[in-house]
Amino acid sequence: MKSKLSFTSDYLEGAYPTILKRLLETNFVKSVGYGLDEFSESARKKIREACDCPKAAVYFLNGGTQTNAVVIDSILKSYQGVVATDIGHISIHEAGAIEFGGHKVLNLPNNYGKISAIEIKSYIENFQQDDNHDHMVEPAMVYISQPTEYGTLYSLKELKAINKVCRNYNLTLYLDGARLAYALACPKNNVSLKDIAELCDVFYIGGTKCGAFLGEAVVIPNPDLIPHFFKIMKQHGALLAKGRLLGIQFDELFTNDLYFKIGHSAIVAANELRNIFKDCGYKLAFDSPTNQIFVILNNKVKENLSAEVEFSFWEKFDDNHTIVRFATSWATNIDDVDKFDKILRKFA
Amino acid sequence: MKSKLSFTSDYLEGAYPTILKRLLETNFVKSVGYGLDEFSESARKKIREACDCPKAAVYFLNGGTQTNAVVIDSILKSYQGVVATDIGHISIHEAGAIEFGGHKVLNLPNNYGKISAIEIKSYIENFQQDDNHDHMVEPAMVYISQPTEYGTLYSLKELKAINKVCRNYNLTLYLDGARLAYALACPKNNVSLKDIAELCDVFYIGGTKCGAFLGEAVVIPNPDLIPHFFKIMKQHGALLAKGRLLGIQFDELFTNDLYFKIGHSAIVAANELRNIFKDCGYKLAFDSPTNQIFVILNNKVKENLSAEVEFSFWEKFDDNHTIVRFATSWATNIDDVDKFDKILRKFA
Amino acid sequence: MKSKLSFTSDYLEGAYPTILKRLLETNFVKSVGYGLDEFSESARKKIREACDCPKAAVYFLNGGTQTNAVVIDSILKSYQGVVATDIGHISIHEAGAIEFGGHKVLNLPNNYGKISAIEIKSYIENFQQDDNHDHMVEPAMVYISQPTEYGTLYSLKELKAINKVCRNYNLTLYLDGARLAYALACPKNNVSLKDIAELCDVFYIGGTKCGAFLGEAVVIPNPDLIPHFFKIMKQHGALLAKGRLLGIQFDELFTNDLYFKIGHSAIVAANELRNIFKDCGYKLAFDSPTNQIFVILNNKVKENLSAEVEFSFWEKFDDNHTIVRFATSWATNIDDVDKFDKILRKFA
Amino acid sequence: MKSKLSFTSDYLEGAYPTILKRLLETNFVKSVGYGLDEFSESARKKIREACDCPKAAVYFLNGGTQTNAVVIDSILKSYQGVVATDIGHISIHEAGAIEFGGHKVLNLPNNYGKISAIEIKSYIENFQQDDNHDHMVEPAMVYISQPTEYGTLYSLKELKAINKVCRNYNLTLYLDGARLAYALACPKNNVSLKDIAELCDVFYIGGTKCGAFLGEAVVIPNPDLIPHFFKIMKQHGALLAKGRLLGIQFDELFTNDLYFKIGHSAIVAANELRNIFKDCGYKLAFDSPTNQIFVILNNKVKENLSAEVEFSFWEKFDDNHTIVRFATSWATNIDDVDKFDKILRKFA
Repeated sequence: MKSKLSFTSDYLEGAYPTILKRLLETNFVKSVGYGLDEFSESARKKIREACDCPKAAVYFLNGGTQTNAVVIDSILKSYQGVVATDIGHISIHEAGAIEFGGHKVLNLPNNYGKISAIEIKSYIENFQQDDNHDHMVEPAMVYISQPTEYGTLYSLKELKAINKVCRNYNLTLYLDGARLAYALACPKNNVSLKDIAELCDVFYIGGTKCGAFLGEAVVIPNPDLIPHFFKIMKQHGALLAKGRLLGIQFDELFTNDLYFKIGHSAIVAANELRNIFKDCGYKLAFDSPTNQIFVILNNKVKENLSAEVEFSFWEKFDDNHTIVRFATSWATNIDDVDKFDKILRKFA
Repeated sequence: MKSKLSFTSDYLEGAYPTILKRLLETNFVKSVGYGLDEFSESARKKIREACDCPKAAVYFLNGGTQTNAVVIDSILKSYQGVVATDIGHISIHEAGAIEFGGHKVLNLPNNYGKISAIEIKSYIENFQQDDNHDHMVEPAMVYISQPTEYGTLYSLKELKAINKVCRNYNLTLYLDGARLAYALACPKNNVSLKDIAELCDVFYIGGTKCGAFLGEAVVIPNPDLIPHFFKIMKQHGALLAKGRLLGIQFDELFTNDLYFKIGHSAIVAANELRNIFKDCGYKLAFDSPTNQIFVILNNKVKENLSAEVEFSFWEKFDDNHTIVRFATSWATNIDDVDKFDKILRKFA
Repeated sequence: MKSKLSFTSDYLEGAYPTILKRLLETNFVKSVGYGLDEFSESARKKIREACDCPKAAVYFLNGGTQTNAVVIDSILKSYQGVVATDIGHISIHEAGAIEFGGHKVLNLPNNYGKISAIEIKSYIENFQQDDNHDHMVEPAMVYISQPTEYGTLYSLKELKAINKVCRNYNLTLYLDGARLAYALACPKNNVSLKDIAELCDVFYIGGTKCGAFLGEAVVIPNPDLIPHFFKIMKQHGALLAKGRLLGIQFDELFTNDLYFKIGHSAIVAANELRNIFKDCGYKLAFDSPTNQIFVILNNKVKENLSAEVEFSFWEKFDDNHTIVRFATSWATNIDDVDKFDKILRKFA
Repeated sequence: MKSKLSFTSDYLEGAYPTILKRLLETNFVKSVGYGLDEFSESARKKIREACDCPKAAVYFLNGGTQTNAVVIDSILKSYQGVVATDIGHISIHEAGAIEFGGHKVLNLPNNYGKISAIEIKSYIENFQQDDNHDHMVEPAMVYISQPTEYGTLYSLKELKAINKVCRNYNLTLYLDGARLAYALACPKNNVSLKDIAELCDVFYIGGTKCGAFLGEAVVIPNPDLIPHFFKIMKQHGALLAKGRLLGIQFDELFTNDLYFKIGHSAIVAANELRNIFKDCGYKLAFDSPTNQIFVILNNKVKENLSAEVEFSFWEKFDDNHTIVRFATSWATNIDDVDKFDKILRKFA
């Protein structure tokens, strides 16, 4: 089968090859179900070490929307809501999964995908001072993504400031790391996995977009925060009978620092794509440093391009231009970037 | 790694070997996400053929509890409930997943895991005649399992009778086929996949316990029954980004009739185990013909046995006896059955 | 308007006359909304005194189903359920209100409407010992009614035993007092309001069936048990803008011990009805001592009777007999009982 | 009891005097429960006539939040959401009641409390054209208030335009009439009750703020739109046992056109208040024509005023000014307006 030239997403291929190898090697080992197996236990141990969190609870779930719904539902009381940017994944792209669990997503405007400590503080204070706050959803949690949905990064300073506001106002800080490997491999990033484990109350290490077939590893540094997570997973239909499938993958991703390296080639390819666009005179919609590139294309060029290469529509820019997204991944072939270079120059 | 002698469940190992082969072969093919890929499409086509349902909608989900929750939630209106036996998987072993979606499970007593058309009819008529029925949950769906949670089978006659009652009273008939391969491979079974597709409004073909790493294929013979299933999957966190992982597995399971053959060795091994128990003078708690064996053990024997072989506690029988469950699967090694034979005879 | 002879329920008329008087007197007093008014505050004070619970939190809601849903939802975590008899109001007659809030009602068989401490203990221990309990809904609350749905009464000894089991197994004990006035006025009752306040974690004092137009007073002896009840009421649509309407009624019901006396005439009338039935040779289905009478009628008699007097169908007894319910209330006119006597004797 | 000078809300007093009279007169009439009584039936008949909707289904609920939650939940499928302004009552002041039912409120910016047909159309078209719309909550309903939360009014032309968009895009149009009597009594209003019944799919006629103790009348011009509303009410805990309490009140409100007249004095008083403010040199925050007045006060004046008269904080205007709300109602005494005049002039 011939693969098309495609930059539509970071989940176009299967799994990182050594993961497949491990699945083959272990296939007939008998193990108990529901994530209590030896592979999952080994993966947990390695993740705790990588996070420098010896007591952390670690659970493996299947995908990002599921993980967000289970985590948020396990933290919030019925009358509480979660603060997120207006373009947060939970705000618009989960088909109402958070509301299905009974919770409101409380939106703040995004600044290139991010919210600031000051904005959160101001929102909480306004809520607390409102005469009607007993008739309003109580903000009890803050949801951020690293990298953000726009591929941008929180700096360590920004994350520390958000952590401080959350501590002061008793808000649970939750970080969605669907593409975390691409942040960790990015030279411009100064937030380590250990920083995240220190500053967030709960976060997940993305597998699906970072080398696994499927899987996200939820880390709860203080395991007392959510005592019955296993049962809540089960209730949400998020518990795999063959939990080993997730355990084996994360065990491999955290062997020999694979997770910290796996995003490297994606960043190189993305930077190359950014250079090609700039070189050909195209403007980036925002200057994100990770594996997603948002570029403003003339609609004519967009149409011509799409005949030869696949990418994603993002949003209308003006009547003649469109913002489109190109994504790279651990599996992106650098030859494909070269091919794209040649194609683009035809329309320049 | 040395594998223990274990009959605790039918999900002890990884996946059927040819599935792993297919995953390897296709690993770097690029495909679109969310189950819209070519592998999933091919699997759907094969399943439609196997069911003789050319227009059926087919969706791939991750596990049984998730599938039950999504299907039931997509069918029922907020004020409606689903009828099931008191030992149905949705009744007791899903940690309240159905109630999480807002629906009541309306229990009828089981007869070796089954309910009859007559009991359903009587229940519905009593409901309709009750002066207070506007204050009660409306039964709108019937949930059955084939094989049942006790390993027993509905006959074609029984299934036809249930279908008739459901038609007459406008109830949606849903069949949980978590272990369907073990029914289809069972000589005592007279209900074909085509019968199920003809008689049920929605059902799922189990993958997780029948050769796949994970995955259940929901079949909706009349696709108009549930118009927005994709979105409901998304809202439930049941939509995998790399849907190909499920598509590839089911494509393989429905290649060369694998799904129809894969349960055969499990049935042979289960019958062998049943004979060993009987031979040694133990009574079966119920005479189920599929891959689960429920046997009554003297507590002393149970304790001795458990030092050398793993199996599941089912329920207390009396002060001196316990019902335990042994399960076989496509991966059960017949040598393990022989080993078990020798162990059991030590205590006979 | 001529009123028919009717014993169908205990909510056939408006409100106790002095309640109407108070509504008239206070009509143009301005008060703040949402139950923070002076009338509600006064009612709370009187209820705390009547319960001998100086610190209790007291909230006023509109009806029984609403109260049960709000209380249960405010106590249970998402993965927990409430234990109740199979004929409990929450089990069958609330159209799935508890499930709408995401919780399973865990049914135990009733014994004339009641469950015993021993049965609860046994249920909890079985749950805890079940290997699969992490896949099951956790019982975390016990729901009982005083009087029960069958009009029977828990004795003080029975209630103390249930309290003890709940303490030992960390279960919240909740008592539904929809008809509590009829228990308190019953000579056979030995459980006082103070006993209930001492032995239950949360309970409600029924108004709707006991003299009010509408209203149930939830009492939480230890107010820390449910910190955000107000907000949960709001979220459930259970918070009246003019909370004074409830406050004024309960203030009146707890003035001069009215609530303790209001059920007296209903019990007298009910006993009279029971005697009339027995005298005419009819059997009671169960011997309940409060304001509901469950009697077994020959279907012919039932039909003849229903031409002249209204009562409720309860359930089929056998092919020739039906169990019907007669209810009396604070508003029952003893003349109506005499009229009924004459009617019944016509068919004797 | 001496009443304070207060303009904090339109639910400060009890009920319109003739309502109390009717409650007294009917108190010992026996009637069936749950809104099936003769009073409710009579009220329904009068409301159908007033709406010129002979086939409309009419239901009586207790309060605004409850009504919104029940109506929205009965219309939307699980994956659908409701479009409302960012200051809509369902968006911010219902403590998450809509999300509790599993639905997202999709916010559009308000224009003095209103949204326009064009904005709705644009929102829907953007949704439909979005590549990811299957991962997003589907807008299926539009929620508007008449008068709005800011006291402003939709004109007939505006309402017709919204109706047209809703028809074209298959959106259910729902109008919240919590304060409808104040719109109907307002000289600037050109939308009649009959217009509303013709243009909206479902709406409610507010009682709580318009003369009743409690109660909102839901009108569904085409009763087939929501077939099981009664049961959904029950499930939401919204069904009163003594439904007559609501029926009698609405029967009175729709006798001799009371509902159309009851807001008149409130509008006169509100206009008077507006004139007093303007006369004293204060600016209105928005020029609403109904019974709510939003005025910008210097913080010093606000503090001084609040020592002598009660009103509501609305929002901070700038560091030295605050927007406050004064509300009048059917019960507002014009003498109180005169008293206020004298007080305000002291600080002018």
